[in-house]
Amino acid sequence: MKIEILAVGSELLTPFYQDTNSLYLTQRLNDLGLEVSFKTVVGDDRESLLVCIKNALVHADVLLAMGGLGPTADDITREVFAETLGRQLVYCPDIFKKIEARFRRRALAIPAANKKQAYIIQGSEVLENKNGTAPGLWLEEGRTRIALLPGPPAELKPMFEEFVWPKLAAFQKGFSSRRVIKIAGLTESEVETRISGLYPKEQGLGLTILASPGQIEIQLYAFAPDASGLPAIKIEDLGQRILERLGGHVFSTAGEELEEVVGGLLGEHRKTLAVAESCSGGLLSHRLTNVSGSSKYFLEGLITYSNQAKIRDLNVPEALIQNHGAVSAEVAQAMADGVRQKAGSNFGLAITGIAGPTGGTAEKPVGLVYSALSWEGGVDIIKNVFPGKREQIKFQSTQKALDMLRRHLL
Amino acid sequence: MKIEILAVGSELLTPFYQDTNSLYLTQRLNDLGLEVSFKTVVGDDRESLLVCIKNALVHADVLLAMGGLGPTADDITREVFAETLGRQLVYCPDIFKKIEARFRRRALAIPAANKKQAYIIQGSEVLENKNGTAPGLWLEEGRTRIALLPGPPAELKPMFEEFVWPKLAAFQKGFSSRRVIKIAGLTESEVETRISGLYPKEQGLGLTILASPGQIEIQLYAFAPDASGLPAIKIEDLGQRILERLGGHVFSTAGEELEEVVGGLLGEHRKTLAVAESCSGGLLSHRLTNVSGSSKYFLEGLITYSNQAKIRDLNVPEALIQNHGAVSAEVAQAMADGVRQKAGSNFGLAITGIAGPTGGTAEKPVGLVYSALSWEGGVDIIKNVFPGKREQIKFQSTQKALDMLRRHLL
Repeated sequence: MKIEILAVGSELLTPFYQDTNSLYLTQRLNDLGLEVSFKTVVGDDRESLLVCIKNALVHADVLLAMGGLGPTADDITREVFAETLGRQLVYCPDIFKKIEARFRRRALAIPAANKKQAYIIQGSEVLENKNGTAPGLWLEEGRTRIALLPGPPAELKPMFEEFVWPKLAAFQKGFSSRRVIKIAGLTESEVETRISGLYPKEQGLGLTILASPGQIEIQLYAFAPDASGLPAIKIEDLGQRILERLGGHVFSTAGEELEEVVGGLLGEHRKTLAVAESCSGGLLSHRLTNVSGSSKYFLEGLITYSNQAKIRDLNVPEALIQNHGAVSAEVAQAMADGVRQKAGSNFGLAITGIAGPTGGTAEKPVGLVYSALSWEGGVDIIKNVFPGKREQIKFQSTQKALDMLRRHLL
Repeated sequence: MKIEILAVGSELLTPFYQDTNSLYLTQRLNDLGLEVSFKTVVGDDRESLLVCIKNALVHADVLLAMGGLGPTADDITREVFAETLGRQLVYCPDIFKKIEARFRRRALAIPAANKKQAYIIQGSEVLENKNGTAPGLWLEEGRTRIALLPGPPAELKPMFEEFVWPKLAAFQKGFSSRRVIKIAGLTESEVETRISGLYPKEQGLGLTILASPGQIEIQLYAFAPDASGLPAIKIEDLGQRILERLGGHVFSTAGEELEEVVGGLLGEHRKTLAVAESCSGGLLSHRLTNVSGSSKYFLEGLITYSNQAKIRDLNVPEALIQNHGAVSAEVAQAMADGVRQKAGSNFGLAITGIAGPTGGTAEKPVGLVYSALSWEGGVDIIKNVFPGKREQIKFQSTQKALDMLRRHLL
């Protein structure tokens, strides 16, 4: 079964707006074991919309179209569907009364433009809009079931849930299950090499790898045609085999960000943390404090951008900076020790490096970052040269620091 | 002329990911006076991709396809295009050498999987990928010009700029001009009220308001079919009238972020800054240090999440916290003064508040934030109650603090 989501609206073809309704609709379709095959965006343009509708009638069993049902002149979805299907638009006094009542409740006269919303496509079923004036429509043409839905999410979602969902439930193809495995500390090709041979070949089981600097995600998706519970079992099984290959490099299997995982571990072990940042410039503290409840374990962060701040706030010996440079293993360690002692925390985490684009040398290039983790009785230091631009280098340096702490806590 | 953007990737048909490349491509096409007619998303699925390619060959003059050129088994874009067009895939030793050299530079052996990236569609022109292994392709089939581009933005953008943009420039339909006016310190409806009557009614001139918590953007776009220079004149004129209505609330007309504007002003006035953050948790420092060269004026940041840290690091009197609470005008001022004196900077900027979702009370609700700016001889304090979730409250609090400093420096 092929399902298409068609978003109609010229603003969705500008650089400024994106359709987000389709993400919601996809989730609900996935809940029925149904997958979306096509997503299309088209403007409020008769000729282009006509092309899209004709194509969908050929290749889609279900077409969820949204947008362009409003009262203004550029809202033409209803009209172009009627034209493409060769059906009449029929005036529906009941709909008009409902729209009128809606305006009356707000003590407003019904604008003339809204009258066109009372016309429906011949042979279609009206989907009441309890949150706006544009009614939705449900119709069938050949093999294709079509829903016309209003564009505003606050109107689309309740209408979909009440009227479209029960119709689609009849096509329930099965039951699905999904899992996201997140990995830090490996490159995309290292992940691929490790899980090679695990790519599922059977129908109804999918694996996708998504890579970004500092983080790799493996998306697993399974569905089965019956209520056997097989998808969950398959995901569990495939997930287990992947975890065996990737071990401690996996930091999350339930959607959490790395900072949430680290926060959870700190809470679990009743440990506290203070951080000292140079090139990451506050991003490490920002990520840690994005987690609600982080004040329980995050005591403070010091962004010691200048050498004087490193010396004054973190007790980094001036000679250390002179002998090794501010970007060095020695200074990273002194920063981690210093912030831990100052804050009286269990752990100190420090980052010093060159985020670029300027400031690099042949010996110490842009991207060079030292991360240090200090605890009572020990210290870990890791040297990396991260690729990418300033913000990517900042992100990767915080990812590495968080992952050091995560691995230590395990 | 009809242009279609086709994004290939099964992850783009899940509830989790959206194509964002198309926004960038649309912007660049608009710069040539070209508009996008269709955006399509399809999975890494032979049958569905075939349908999309066939449809595009019928109705599109230009097809920009992206994604699915990688080395893994689910990357099938190149192969399905060849199949649909009835063309052979031809092995290209030069491409293989370049990919191999790429791996060699990183001291890695070339994985067997990458060999398939050296195959090109017969009759196509290779678009070199200077930022990854997947080469792009340019080909023509009937009336349709086709570009196959890699999915990762860091690879797609430079390839598009260097190789595809010059080809599309031949279809230039006109000349456009664009301006973004960024505003802090007003709500969307305040902006709308102030600029009411300025909405352009003429063809080829557009105004769009984009609102997000803490920042309003007015996008101006003008277009003319000839090289008269009219779009730039119209934008300049409309922009001027908008600036007159909005005055000092506008912080940028050339695309800069607020932190860049503030950084530029600090540099211009040869002043230095230190910041003390509580509820913003490092985001203010992170934003300031996202600006290259910020080490010239940003001396340090202290994220004093705990009361002890406020007392110890910022010399906030303990009695002040006991009498007024950590979230108070008095403590905000003491934090700003304290960090300025400690760092020996010209300005001290401080934020203390309740980012939520927990920790609010009837008297001090979630979203309550005090921002303070301290300089030798004075202090400004502003109280806000920001709407939204934790991350939105954090962002708005940093926006307010940066804007205080900007207004002071003007």
